[in-house]
Amino acid sequence: MPIKVLIVGYGNVGRMALQALRQAKDMELAGLASGSLSQTDKPPAELEGVSIKAAPEDFKGEADVAILCVPSRSVPEFAKRCLALGMNTVDSFDIHTDILDTKKRLDAAAKAAGRTAVLSAGWDPGSDSVVRALMMAMLPRGLSYTNFGPGMSMGHTVAVKAIEGVKNALSMTMPQGDGIHKRMVYVELEPGASLEDVAARIKADPYFVHDETHVIEVEDVAEVQDVGHGVHLVRQGSSGATHNQYVEFNMRINNPALTSQIMISCARACLRQEPGCYTMIEIPPVDYLPGDRDGWVKKLV
Amino acid sequence: MPIKVLIVGYGNVGRMALQALRQAKDMELAGLASGSLSQTDKPPAELEGVSIKAAPEDFKGEADVAILCVPSRSVPEFAKRCLALGMNTVDSFDIHTDILDTKKRLDAAAKAAGRTAVLSAGWDPGSDSVVRALMMAMLPRGLSYTNFGPGMSMGHTVAVKAIEGVKNALSMTMPQGDGIHKRMVYVELEPGASLEDVAARIKADPYFVHDETHVIEVEDVAEVQDVGHGVHLVRQGSSGATHNQYVEFNMRINNPALTSQIMISCARACLRQEPGCYTMIEIPPVDYLPGDRDGWVKKLV
Repeated sequence: MPIKVLIVGYGNVGRMALQALRQAKDMELAGLASGSLSQTDKPPAELEGVSIKAAPEDFKGEADVAILCVPSRSVPEFAKRCLALGMNTVDSFDIHTDILDTKKRLDAAAKAAGRTAVLSAGWDPGSDSVVRALMMAMLPRGLSYTNFGPGMSMGHTVAVKAIEGVKNALSMTMPQGDGIHKRMVYVELEPGASLEDVAARIKADPYFVHDETHVIEVEDVAEVQDVGHGVHLVRQGSSGATHNQYVEFNMRINNPALTSQIMISCARACLRQEPGCYTMIEIPPVDYLPGDRDGWVKKLV
Repeated sequence: MPIKVLIVGYGNVGRMALQALRQAKDMELAGLASGSLSQTDKPPAELEGVSIKAAPEDFKGEADVAILCVPSRSVPEFAKRCLALGMNTVDSFDIHTDILDTKKRLDAAAKAAGRTAVLSAGWDPGSDSVVRALMMAMLPRGLSYTNFGPGMSMGHTVAVKAIEGVKNALSMTMPQGDGIHKRMVYVELEPGASLEDVAARIKADPYFVHDETHVIEVEDVAEVQDVGHGVHLVRQGSSGATHNQYVEFNMRINNPALTSQIMISCARACLRQEPGCYTMIEIPPVDYLPGDRDGWVKKLV
């Protein structure tokens, strides 16, 4: 029986989750929950034949897993609603400081419903978290660094857009090594706004005040925007009493494509865990992969 | 209560497992099972105060986990004996083609004893296997390459030592990229042996016949030997329908130090799994780390 998947939300990640799901032979689409798309007469061409309704509640009994492609702030509410409907859930909640509290609340909701929630299933938090845990197991003492980019920071971009005088913006994260980042901020200005004033406001914002920040005016942000991203995770330290051990993980990726693929892989994993809420470091990696364990043990171990 | 660990075998890996265990605040040494050391009057200085007996059976009821630092060929027998004694086991069995069969046999033995066996817990198989599984979850379609070295290949070195005319040998694995390896073989010859003849025999051996192999005569193999090793895992492919995704994992490490550290980390994990036999891709990564999950979720996710 294929896994029946409901996609909730249809932004960048939702669109690519649909693509990833269509590549997964062990899954089928139950439908798309989207308030805005459920009201339009002309959904995008790729959604032809897809059942589009306003809310997860409209799919009660029709989905095994709900992939929550909604803003992080909305994740806890949607997760609780889907769990109560008897669906397992996967999200890519990325507010690092709230993960543990959110996990505790979703854990209670998941156990009450006898279902599983996979929390923060993207690449960071997500697959990077798994790599960091593995590196700690290999080199328990030492120093780790997570270097992001070059790539667009969603959080920083939203912060810039809220600043007076900014019409549109893009904040790029540029790795300077050892976990230090530079911010390259591209702005379209409102008529009459001064670049100097806007740059001063950006540099004084809590999101930017601690980092080297450069503000550059552009005519059209869309002309410089790209969803490519990367990370370089490094750990140097000791295994047992032996120093000079070095491990690193590096990637260059399309950001929403990887995020949504990881969510789809986690849709398998959530059906294989006991009820409760899990982050990716709490799940056996083989559970992300289709088919039976023995085949993967033979192929990967 | 600290985890009571028995070390079985005292070669390179056993010695470094003892060092790693002494760095682990949540563990204590139950003793060392070593046939040869149990018969000597002068064990090495670092073993002062350590209970040394001939066999695991001499430690019945005294250990939670047995770390099997014995040759791969002896692992299944020692694992079954230790499981029957009520100990959980960790090994770094590295005969890739026999892993699945060995897992099935140890799974039955572990379940019968109500204990857990962690199989093939080194760096390859082991942590590399976890990275490969994670990369598959991130990029389900594409090509993966495991590039080893530069570093000593135990298997190839043993094969050379068995060849006529060879007194001592070291076979180094040199990565050529894309999973292709070159073999650099350093040999001490028996008196009267010809380098030309020995080189021809090595190159005709099944271990070497498919790889570019160079044979170099040295006066003393000990002068060129080093336990440094490395790996470069690469996967290029697609997430969903999006191509050009690239991930890589790279390390430079002291080989027995990393192997033994991973075994010690797995000693924690085996106490946290249901009875049965597991490879590392089947274990939640957080289970390798000391202390409670919440702290690691907060720190790593």
